[in-house]
Amino acid sequence: KNILIIPGDGIGQEVTTWGKQVLETIAAKYGHEFSFDEAIMGHTAIEATGNPLPDETLEKAKTADAILFGAIGHAKYDNDPSAKVRPEQGLLKIRKELGLYANLRPILLFDELLEASSLKPEILQGTDILFFRELTGDVYFGEKTRSDDNTFASDLMNYHRYEVERIARKAYDAARTRNKKLCSVDKANVLETSRLWRDVVQEIAREYPDVETEHMFIDNAAMQLVKNPKKFDVVLTANLFGDILTDEASQIAGSMGMLASASIGDGTGFFEPIHGSAHDIAGQNKANPLASILSAALMLDIAFGLQEEAKTVTEAVADTLKAGWRTGDIANAETPATHILGTNEMG
Amino acid sequence: KNILIIPGDGIGQEVTTWGKQVLETIAAKYGHEFSFDEAIMGHTAIEATGNPLPDETLEKAKTADAILFGAIGHAKYDNDPSAKVRPEQGLLKIRKELGLYANLRPILLFDELLEASSLKPEILQGTDILFFRELTGDVYFGEKTRSDDNTFASDLMNYHRYEVERIARKAYDAARTRNKKLCSVDKANVLETSRLWRDVVQEIAREYPDVETEHMFIDNAAMQLVKNPKKFDVVLTANLFGDILTDEASQIAGSMGMLASASIGDGTGFFEPIHGSAHDIAGQNKANPLASILSAALMLDIAFGLQEEAKTVTEAVADTLKAGWRTGDIANAETPATHILGTNEMG
Ligand SMILES: CC(C)[C@H](C(=O)O)[C@@H](O)C(=O)O
Ligand SMILES: CC(C)[C@H](C(=O)O)[C@@H](O)C(=O)O
Repeated sequence: KNILIIPGDGIGQEVTTWGKQVLETIAAKYGHEFSFDEAIMGHTAIEATGNPLPDETLEKAKTADAILFGAIGHAKYDNDPSAKVRPEQGLLKIRKELGLYANLRPILLFDELLEASSLKPEILQGTDILFFRELTGDVYFGEKTRSDDNTFASDLMNYHRYEVERIARKAYDAARTRNKKLCSVDKANVLETSRLWRDVVQEIAREYPDVETEHMFIDNAAMQLVKNPKKFDVVLTANLFGDILTDEASQIAGSMGMLASASIGDGTGFFEPIHGSAHDIAGQNKANPLASILSAALMLDIAFGLQEEAKTVTEAVADTLKAGWRTGDIANAETPATHILGTNEMG
Repeated sequence: KNILIIPGDGIGQEVTTWGKQVLETIAAKYGHEFSFDEAIMGHTAIEATGNPLPDETLEKAKTADAILFGAIGHAKYDNDPSAKVRPEQGLLKIRKELGLYANLRPILLFDELLEASSLKPEILQGTDILFFRELTGDVYFGEKTRSDDNTFASDLMNYHRYEVERIARKAYDAARTRNKKLCSVDKANVLETSRLWRDVVQEIAREYPDVETEHMFIDNAAMQLVKNPKKFDVVLTANLFGDILTDEASQIAGSMGMLASASIGDGTGFFEPIHGSAHDIAGQNKANPLASILSAALMLDIAFGLQEEAKTVTEAVADTLKAGWRTGDIANAETPATHILGTNEMG
């Protein structure tokens, strides 16, 4: 298998080193042949070439069997609302070019981290959510305008029926293999795109009579996720709402530093932590590499069908936590026996 | 003072009775003259007139000194994505017609309810957030389209500079009277409207050098609100993001049933609980009337400048909670001494 590593920006570099290392270890242990290539994207690519997604990176991405990505972004652009070239454009473009329309974000709760969350353990215990976030439509990709005199700006939020259909099917298929519950999140009391979304999901739901469907407004979902996360099984939602809800849900898992994601669709599968580039701690051996390592596990499982190998990685993470090892983000004052490690030691 | 009561739909009817009752009691106690009128809106108005915001209601609203509103919505429309007339249109139209561009949502934490939240008490303690949600722009009011063959839908997200300026000034003014911290929430790494938003906020920030400004992406804010709510003071954000964040924040206060809001701008001030119509419990004497009562307190304070009277109401709520009285939504298994009341008894 040909694996492309795109470390990206900030802590992306450090954590991806360990995702890759785990893939190498698995290859050696199970006798697989993984070959690795590397490419640049984001701020790093802008600095080197002026382009957040150089052609060479896109070419490599298209021919790879799977991609392990780190993180993207830099404060420099965030505070300059007029910057025309931005790191995030690289990530959005590669998602679009590879047709990665379904972003899977499993909220995996390790028992050892129950105490690391700001939520009460009894609220969390037993939570197991799989998010399906649509990734190539919505207000992310619709036309953007800004008036010449800078007094007006707009972004078009839009969806085509087929875009909702294909991700809805994937989410329903997954719900079938789990607890057979699907919650579709929208804002159909206000948005026309949400009404189309709800219309399509209601239609697809008929093909899956064994799955229980619920429709929920995004404001209510943002509330329920904190109030009673256990009630969710598969959550299906649009690009923007998915962005917001999954970050919020990271607090269920104790930290953003624990959450992996898989983006799939027409082309090469793309695996990445949901955390950002965290420039404030970059290069300091402080970042949690577990999200990258768990992203590697998702790659083994989803891109290569290597379930046994994926399980080995996930169990290794669980064992490490059980032994008391923590990075700063998941360390907890209440369990003083915890040993705090740097990125490299944890990796 | 002329107060217009618009009970709206579902539990709106029951809870508003008590908001009004409190206003009458205050008038008697402090020797004010409040006169009341009533009008219909939402599902109730559609049933009676076919129009979610009848002209008569709008006329009364424009001439009133303040409005106390209940709730809006009905499941019937939610599950019918093709319905052309919807209760929510009434609420959106009255906000627009009255120029209610600033929605203030204070997250008030009563010590007695610390245990009612799904968040750990030590995470909550000391939290005091005031949200400024923009209310008459964004994807709520931009052009909506749906193709004739139902294969495509769109909503235009848009902002004008002056819309951001006027609410930013209100939020900064409030921050000055509080802890002098303002967090502006956007998605400037993706949205052009957010980049305009950030541009304007950076400009207004210069007029308030004594207030500390932070810019945060919406996904991060949704996470931080659960992780560390104490870090926020004034939060300024757009219509859609504000809708999501404030519902999420309701879990800080223990329940949606506790949160009041004030919508202000060019015309008559509009005061309402942030909870919805909750048709599942309507007419059963189960709804929590405290959000309506606290909305009445906001009216006294903001619309009439009666700070002393407002404080009397808020303290009465605190005393009631202190005495152990609860409605079902804020009752807590861990404090068995709690006395559970219906809407009317609590009122
Ligand atoms: C970096 C940003 C463009 C991106 C997004 O909003 O999709 C990130 O937040 C994510 O969730 O992957
Ligand atoms: C009912 C709905 C249109 C409304 C909104 O989204 O603004 C509600 O959720 C609110 O927050 O007041």
